[in-house]
This record gives sequence, C-alpha cells and structure tokens, in this order.
Amino acid sequence: MYKVTKPTLLLDKKKAIKNIKRMAEKAKASGVNYRPHFKTHFSKEIGEWYRDLGVKSITVSSIDMAVFFAGHGWDDITIAFPVNILQMDVLKHLAKAVKLGLVVESQSVIKAINTEIESAVDVYIKVDTGYHRVGIWHENVEEIKQLGEAIAEPHQFKGLLAHFGHTYSETKREEIKSIYDYGVASLNALRDQLGQKLKISIGDTPSCSLMDKFENVDEIRPGNLIFYDVMQANIGSCIKEDIAVCLAAPVVAVYLERSEVVVHGGAVHLSKDRLNDDQGDYYGKVVLLEEKGWSQPLEDYRIKGLSQEHGKITIPKDQIRKFKIGDVLGILPVHSCLTANLMKEYMTLRGEKVGTMHL
Amino acid sequence: MYKVTKPTLLLDKKKAIKNIKRMAEKAKASGVNYRPHFKTHFSKEIGEWYRDLGVKSITVSSIDMAVFFAGHGWDDITIAFPVNILQMDVLKHLAKAVKLGLVVESQSVIKAINTEIESAVDVYIKVDTGYHRVGIWHENVEEIKQLGEAIAEPHQFKGLLAHFGHTYSETKREEIKSIYDYGVASLNALRDQLGQKLKISIGDTPSCSLMDKFENVDEIRPGNLIFYDVMQANIGSCIKEDIAVCLAAPVVAVYLERSEVVVHGGAVHLSKDRLNDDQGDYYGKVVLLEEKGWSQPLEDYRIKGLSQEHGKITIPKDQIRKFKIGDVLGILPVHSCLTANLMKEYMTLRGEKVGTMHL
Repeated sequence: MYKVTKPTLLLDKKKAIKNIKRMAEKAKASGVNYRPHFKTHFSKEIGEWYRDLGVKSITVSSIDMAVFFAGHGWDDITIAFPVNILQMDVLKHLAKAVKLGLVVESQSVIKAINTEIESAVDVYIKVDTGYHRVGIWHENVEEIKQLGEAIAEPHQFKGLLAHFGHTYSETKREEIKSIYDYGVASLNALRDQLGQKLKISIGDTPSCSLMDKFENVDEIRPGNLIFYDVMQANIGSCIKEDIAVCLAAPVVAVYLERSEVVVHGGAVHLSKDRLNDDQGDYYGKVVLLEEKGWSQPLEDYRIKGLSQEHGKITIPKDQIRKFKIGDVLGILPVHSCLTANLMKEYMTLRGEKVGTMHL
Repeated sequence: MYKVTKPTLLLDKKKAIKNIKRMAEKAKASGVNYRPHFKTHFSKEIGEWYRDLGVKSITVSSIDMAVFFAGHGWDDITIAFPVNILQMDVLKHLAKAVKLGLVVESQSVIKAINTEIESAVDVYIKVDTGYHRVGIWHENVEEIKQLGEAIAEPHQFKGLLAHFGHTYSETKREEIKSIYDYGVASLNALRDQLGQKLKISIGDTPSCSLMDKFENVDEIRPGNLIFYDVMQANIGSCIKEDIAVCLAAPVVAVYLERSEVVVHGGAVHLSKDRLNDDQGDYYGKVVLLEEKGWSQPLEDYRIKGLSQEHGKITIPKDQIRKFKIGDVLGILPVHSCLTANLMKEYMTLRGEKVGTMHL
C-alpha cells in the first residue's frame, strides 16, 4: 500500500500497462510498427513494461533523452524533433551505438549529417499536414524530393514522419478522424509522387486512440496514452478511468467561509498547463484517494489556481466540512507529460518508487 | 566565455548580485532583516552569494527545500508555506538542527507542533491582507489571539507573516504602494490589538522592489528579485536590464513563408507561465545573445507558442532571413522561479555551471 507525506505522483501500473497493451495490440492487428514516445514517462523502469509487451523501437524528443535510453538497452531510437546541429558530436557517437532515426527538414541539416555522422542513420523527412509547427508542407513535393536526394550514403532516406498535433484542439471524434484521414492521405500521395519505398510514421495520441485500425501507415508513435490525462479525456482519446497518474497533494489549509482548501501541489508539481470551461480556467480534476487507486473525478470541485507550491481548490459548500488539514487529495493532471517531468519520480499503488531520467 | 549546444539557462552573475545587493542595502538602511526566499534559485552556490553580502537568514517554500539548505550551512530558516503535518517527523529533526520558523494558521497544526516537536521553533501566524490564498483575515483578531495563546513552550509566537501576492496582478506603482500600505497598516493594527511583541514579516517582490524604504515592518522576504523576469518587468518591479537569467535556445527550424523560427526551448524549459497583451498570449521575450550577456528584448519578436520541447517564435518579415538553423536565441522567461526549477542548472556568462537542489 502506498503512503504519501508530500506531493507524490501516484502511478496505477495496471492502468498504464492496460493502456500500452491496448495500443500495442491495435498496432499488431493493423500490422504497423509501434514506436512509443518515451517523452511522457522518462523512465527506464517503465520502458521495461513496454519491452515486456514486445516493443523494440522507441521515440524520444531530445538528444539527451536518446542518450539516456540508449544507456538502458534501447537500440532502435528515433528522435522526433528537428536535429539540433549544435549537438552533432553527441549524435555522431550515438549513431555508432544504436540504430538512430533522425528527423530533418532542411538542406543544411542533411549536409551536416552527411559530413559529420559516419555510421548509418535513418533519415525521416518531417512533413506538415496541417499542424504548422514544424515540417515541410506536404504539397511541396519538389522541395521534399530534393531533400531526399541530398541524403548521402551510408545514410538512408527512410521515411516521411508527421505529427497531427492539431488533433489536440479538437473534441469531436469525426474532426479528429478527418485530420487523421487528411494526414494519412497526404502522406501517401506524397510517397507516390516521390516514387520511393518510404515508411510513413505518424503519432498523436488522439488519433491513435480513436482509430480502430491503421491503414496505409507503417508506424505509430503515440506516447501520452500510457498515462492519458484530463486534456486527453476532454478530447475523447480516453475515458477518465484510463488516466493512470494522479498527484497526491496534502491539504495544508481549509477555509470554511470561502469553501476552499489549499493543497501542497502547485506549478512545480503539476505544471501550469490548464483547460477552461464556462467557469474559466482550471488546472486538473480532483479525485478522492482510495486504497486501490482513486475515485471518479469530483466534477463540482475546482482547481482554480496554482502558485509555485500552492494549489487552490474550491469545494461545494455542503462538503467543505469533510476536509481537514493532513488529508490528502488526488489531482488528475491536465497534461501528464509535463507533470511527470516535474515530479521526476512515481509511486505505484503498492508503494514502489519508480524513477525517471531526472532522478 | 559560455558555450551553448542545447537549451541552457544563462545566468548573469553580476546582475544577480547587483539585484540582491540593492535589496540587502535597502533592508539595512531601513533597519529590517532581509530573509530572502530561496525558492527562486534553489542553489547552494547562489546561496553563498547572499551569504557574502551578509545574509544569515533565509526563507524556503517546502520542507524538502529547508532540509537541502540546512545541509548547506543555513541555520536560520523559515518555511513560508503552511505546515504540512504529514511531514512532522522531518520537522522534528530539522528543529533540532536549525533555528526553524514555521507558518501556521490553525489550531490543529499548533497542536501538532506542541505535541510532536521538542526543540523550540519560532511560530508565525499567517495573515491575509487581501491576497486570499492562505492566512487568516487580519480583522479576525480573536481567532489569531487564540492561536497565539495555543502556542506552548518551548515554542514561541514570534510574529505575523503575510504575503501581498495581489501585487503581482498590478502594473501601477500607486496600486502596489496602496496594497503595501494597507497590508502594513493592517498588520500593525493587528499587532497592537494583540498587545504582544511580535515581528512583522512581509515579502512580495513587487512591493519590496518599489518601496524606497520599509517602515513598521521587521523583516522582508522577497526572492524573485535575484533574477527578476518579464512578469516583474511588466509589473514595474524592475527594468528589463535587471533580468539576470535567459534561456539560450538553439534554432532548429526556420520558416521563411510564415516568418517563424522554432527553437529547442519549450514547456519543459521555460514552464507554461504566460503573459498577454493586445495580440494574445506570449511566453517570454526574445533577446540576441552577446559575448557579455544579451541584448534588449526584441519587442517585435513574439514567442507565441510552447510545446513540450518546441518554442515557436514569430520574427518580423524583414528580419527572418538573418536566422539559420544552429543559431542560438535568448529568451527572457515570464517567470524565472519556474524556469530555474525546470532547468535545474545555470551557466554563468563565464561558462561556469551552477547547480540547484535538483541537479
């Protein structure tokens, strides 16, 4: 049984494994490679849970994270972030040690890879299908073609990589499906026009969660789904019961007059990511902690503000008297990746500590 | 000279020391104790810069932070956060080792201190003068009196502690002064009514920065002012030249058509704290890095979005061609405390690494 004395990130291992198993099985049934994004959990131990389910290839979001997981037995790693050429000497060594996938979108980066990295790397061209964060617009076929042609031996133009990040602003299944369908169709049209044997790699949690099967893609890279969070539940990627992490936050003050409690659980624990509804912004959902996990979210409780260490929670007037200093409330995070990064460590419901690359 | 290859928190040591020196001198001239909040920098080395300026007493925001600084030679520590009674066994040991100040606002916590902590601690009652986050409303004299009376030997009712956090939402000097004046007057009226010899401790960066001298208070606890940030510059607590930390973020993509660059510098580096103006939200101010620091903020550059690792910056159309992949941009953070907590380490302009309790 877990015991909490200070802000602690509880992890329901069964839910997390169920979440990744569901995706691993869906990927397998569709015949696509599952290359989960490890930027959600940052943890060598949690990595092993994936490995036990047959996962052999992973995605990371920084060179440092690639180095960390390479040091823990992962030998097929794609860094799904534009290459930072200032760290080329690290990449040079990493490419010797593991099968390394790099994401590029400019001639200058390809030139740097060609001249500075000796061991073969898999080069993916980042393609934008509507998110407009990074990548080359999918209709710029000539530009992409020229990039592909510039990739020199021993490196290989391996595939087209996209992130349909605009699904995160949708809450309707049909909208997400439409973004997914447009993205996959665009990538396939592009591949046809390039006339090359290329892998298509996609990876947002909303569309990967909502699609029943994956056609015309070769690889999926979702990461957040291991934990999910309130944002994903609002999008419809999961139900709230799927959320596998919960910040346990001790109550340090109770205010009867304004029907509020203050917990030790603030921006340095949860992050300042927030959602909003007709009542304004909120920073997570309150749950009651139970021996075997936590309750359904208490929808009439509201986390209305976070300072550096404080969380301010409004409680319905008829319930405020139930709470006292020294109680511990649970908070389902808005964005589990940022919460995990801040907390640096998890505690399972059995009370085992699980570390991350930060601790 | 510093060298940056990945997201790095640059620290201008001269500016930081100038910032703390200014406050230390102002406190001295007013005859008040300076008990800086160390939750801004989290660093044992930076703590020494204060010590060199004669600072002997500090403020922290969590019990873990108190333990960290107690382990680095600080023996007069106030934890300016409501006592978390679940960590009473840690406090018990800490009270033996250092002169410990605790902040309370309920009978149940005073009872726990009386019964569980053997070594004398200084007890401060947290008073609310308008921020309404934590504390007892200053006019509830009877409640505060009863709390004071409940504090049992060897512990001492040492003072009244307040945080005028509502100054952070103001941008006019006269508004901040008015909050400060009301708070200080309220605390003095309360002390008079209690009829006891009590210390008055206050501590927000805006009012401590804007007041020329401190009258009728015994102690100031501001922390953020060592670094300041864009939020404080907007409030008027500092000028932008005072800001002493800057995230160096490598450019990883350049988009001529939409006049944007993407840097490696996102929510896991800067935090999601944001400000807004007539153009919407923004996440910091862009500066150009120079050998001896950084330029003035480029007000027509806009950090319009942060993902976990990406920062998206809009550049004026006539300047976008100046930038290429591999350049490094500087970002003055919106909220330096959260950025320092995330970055875990600083690099001075001379290239020296300065650690924190997180690294």
